[in-house]
Amino acid sequence: MSAITALATSEKSTILAPLLAAGWKLQPKDSNTPKAKEALTKTFHFSDFNEAFGFMTRVAIAAEKADHHPEWFNVYNRVEVLLTTHDAGNSVSKRDVDLATKMEEFASTQRK
Amino acid sequence: MSAITALATSEKSTILAPLLAAGWKLQPKDSNTPKAKEALTKTFHFSDFNEAFGFMTRVAIAAEKADHHPEWFNVYNRVEVLLTTHDAGNSVSKRDVDLATKMEEFASTQRK
Repeated sequence: MSAITALATSEKSTILAPLLAAGWKLQPKDSNTPKAKEALTKTFHFSDFNEAFGFMTRVAIAAEKADHHPEWFNVYNRVEVLLTTHDAGNSVSKRDVDLATKMEEFASTQRK
Repeated sequence: MSAITALATSEKSTILAPLLAAGWKLQPKDSNTPKAKEALTKTFHFSDFNEAFGFMTRVAIAAEKADHHPEWFNVYNRVEVLLTTHDAGNSVSKRDVDLATKMEEFASTQRK
């Protein structure tokens, strides 16, 4: 089980580099918006709903196994994902990195 | 295949009554917000992620079969749904009513 502490500032650039290179964004906390969370976000595009929901199903099974779940929105072939760790004060933790990495793996072996 | 024309105002109250009674809301078009759609919306709550995603999977299969897909957001045990018909000018059509009715059936046979 990955640590549920927030990533340290010093380790972020190294740990997040592969995800940022793959199109993930690091949404910072916004002190003006108390509800804003630090989060990893990405929008995935697929050929159609079948592919998009197939991806979501693979992610759902992995998420449940890790007991760490995404916030996500789907319409047709589009899946918008937000990953944050509630138990780390709504910051990004290694759990989010692990789930994002799995999403990349699933999407890359599925997208046309 | 259900008609893809918007529901007539005269038939809305009759056709939508069972859904409104079950907690669905009819979101009106907002002339001040050009992108706002007429839509049926509802937030479903389940026991946990397994139940929520199980519901989503049943809906996904029915949606694909009907070639009519929801806009939906999920986090853990919560599923927020918005149904509208793009081909009816982003208005509510019989297709949305049919999908909402199926969602009620699936949720009622699943929720604790």
